[in-house]
This record gives sequence, structure tokens and C-alpha cells, in this order.
Amino acid sequence: MRVKLARDILKANDQLANGLRRRLTSHGVLGVNLIGSPGSGKTTLLERTIERLEGLRVAVIEGDIATALDAERIERTGAPAVQINTEGACHLDANMVIDAASELDLAVLDFLFIENVGNLVCPAAWDLGEDVKVVVSSVAEGDEKPRKYPAVFQKAAACVLSKVDLLPHVDFDIERFRADAALLNPDLTVLPVSAREGTGVAEWVAWLKDRLTAKRQRR
Amino acid sequence: MRVKLARDILKANDQLANGLRRRLTSHGVLGVNLIGSPGSGKTTLLERTIERLEGLRVAVIEGDIATALDAERIERTGAPAVQINTEGACHLDANMVIDAASELDLAVLDFLFIENVGNLVCPAAWDLGEDVKVVVSSVAEGDEKPRKYPAVFQKAAACVLSKVDLLPHVDFDIERFRADAALLNPDLTVLPVSAREGTGVAEWVAWLKDRLTAKRQRR
Repeated sequence: MRVKLARDILKANDQLANGLRRRLTSHGVLGVNLIGSPGSGKTTLLERTIERLEGLRVAVIEGDIATALDAERIERTGAPAVQINTEGACHLDANMVIDAASELDLAVLDFLFIENVGNLVCPAAWDLGEDVKVVVSSVAEGDEKPRKYPAVFQKAAACVLSKVDLLPHVDFDIERFRADAALLNPDLTVLPVSAREGTGVAEWVAWLKDRLTAKRQRR
Repeated sequence: MRVKLARDILKANDQLANGLRRRLTSHGVLGVNLIGSPGSGKTTLLERTIERLEGLRVAVIEGDIATALDAERIERTGAPAVQINTEGACHLDANMVIDAASELDLAVLDFLFIENVGNLVCPAAWDLGEDVKVVVSSVAEGDEKPRKYPAVFQKAAACVLSKVDLLPHVDFDIERFRADAALLNPDLTVLPVSAREGTGVAEWVAWLKDRLTAKRQRR
């Protein structure tokens, strides 16, 4: 009975997510669901990404348990941002994202970024209607994250390995990280980035633009 | 109906947790539930803690979604460790901990550490039968963690602010962190620690010993 109930909720979520994905596709918008631990650097990555996507039209949906701190940071870049406060819930769901998206004009966008609640576990199970999931993992978290939190690495199209400016100050074997991630998901693109120093941001932005082009060509 | 079900599960969990807490108390054992993001430094902190608690008897229950990496690290210190693999579940519950504790002889222990699944959100809601919750938050995660993840800071007796050796390399305002944490929980003891360099470990271990003494005096 309990399992059935949980399945029903997930099924309802997936139907809502598919509806949003169709809407994004009809407008030629790429939806990106950013998932990572608290403090993995998702918001700072978005700030640098928006600056580099100059000329393209970006909006952000921010998910947090509490506060509007992240949406305020995004708005300072000039991009529209909608903050969701989950009030305790540990992940976003499609219904929350659809509600937030109603505040945005999808027809004028190129990218819709959804920054999930800081959590490497629960968000992996919830389809938000995105085109791609991207996992953000910082070198300060250690190189064993793919082995210990496999689901999100299996489901993501790319992994932004963030805060690589800290590599000289932490114990982190980047080849071990890459090898473990590749075992879980041979198609995962690992992108080392320092949003603070700018390293790797161009490659990450190029990856995003390629995904947008590919999506529009498939239409 | 759904809410009722969730409440029933939490109620059953709390009854199990209270039973374990009574058993720990009857043996004079202090139970410590360590909660923090993936890569916040919980396992490294435990390694250094066990070394410093020389002469006292320590056991560890390790919670992870997958792998026995953390229990293997603990066993190398000489302390008994039991690994729980939650296979997807984002937090430990009392039933899992009771099952793992059956592998340990509680009568010969001073401290039972429970390292929760790496997650700053969900574990805060689950009583595992511990005497104290301790939140571990690394300076690499940023200074706004108390504001964004309030529940765990409200419920913890202490916060280990970890990886303070990285302070020169990250943007982190320790006074802001302390002030935000104090607003949420005036009784929270904030302990800056670098497990890597040893800074603050003595103060953290002294805090633990004080809690053990206080518990035994109350008996």
C-alpha cells in the first residue's frame, strides 16, 4: 500500500514533467536541472554562466528550503529569477516548477535553469521536465562522491566539477573521480570549472550551447 | 490520509529511537548523530576524534547509500564499525540503527557515533536514539548554510565548522555564520575545526567528554 502510494505520486509527477518538457520544446527552450550538495557552487556557477551567455535569453528557477538569497543573487545579473521555498521539502517536484514557470514568459527564452534544493540524493529521483540534469560536485567534497552517490551521476548528462581552484589545498584525485563517474555513466561529460577564477567556464557554456543547438535541430 | 501515514511512520520511528536511547543510557554510552552535506568532512573528523579519544571506547555506525568506504576507514583506526547501506534512502532511521547496533556490545562502550547519510536536509527530521545531534558544515560550503538549511542547526547541540584550513582560499565570513546560527539556536556550540591540520580537534573532543560526563552525572 505504501509503495503503491509512492508510485502514484511519482507517476503524477512524471506526467506533469512531461507536459512542461513539451512546452519548453515548443518554445525551443533548453531546460537544465542543476543538482548538487549544499555549497557545491551551483548559484555562483549560474552567475558566471549567465554573464557568458550574453545575447542569449536566460531565466532561473531557484529552489531552496528557506530564504530568497539565491534568487536575489541571480536577479543582480539581470536575468529573471523565481524563488521556490519548499519549507522543508528536500527536493523540487514538477508541480512546484510549473507553478514557478507560470511567472516567466517561456516564449522569449533560450535557457531555463532550475537550481534544485542543495541535496545530492533526493533530487535525482524527481523529473522536473528538464532536458538535461547536470550534477555539480566540488573538489572540496572529495573524489569518492560518484561511488557514494551513484544515482545522480547515472542520470546526469554532465558533471560540473566545481571549485577546481581549491585542488592544491585538498586531497582530490581527479582521475579517480573521472574513472568512477565513467563506470557509472559512460556518456557523462565531466567539466572541471572554477567559477571564482573563470577556468573551464567557456567549455561549460560551449557544452550548453551545443545542447541547445542539438535540441532545436531535432525539432 | 497521506499525512497521517507519514505521521505514523515518524511516531513508530520515535518509539524505536526512545528504546535505543534508554539502552544507551543504561550502559552510560553517549550517542552522537553526525549530520552534514556530502563531503563536509564527517568521516575524517571521526578518524581524528577516535585518535584523540584514546583510552575511551568508541564504536561507529556508518550510513551511506552505497559502498563500505567509510566503515573501512574507521576500522583502520582500530574502532569497531558497522556499515549501513540505505540503497537509495536519503537518511538513516532508528530501525536501521538498532539493527546495526545489534552487531556491537554497547555495554563496553563510552561513545557511539552514528554518521548519517551525507545530506543536510532529511536526516534532521529523524531521531536515531542519539543523545546529541552534531551538524558538520565545511567552510567550502559557504557561510549562508544556517539560513538556508535551518532545521538541522535548530536541532543540533553543536556545529563543527570543518575545513577551516581552507578559510584563506574561500569567501567565508565566520562571524556571519556564528550570528546566523545563534539566531536559530542560541544554545548551539560552534566549534571551528581542521581535521587535516588538527586545529580545534582538542576543543571538539573536550566538548564530547563534557557531554559524556554530564550524561553520567544525570543518571
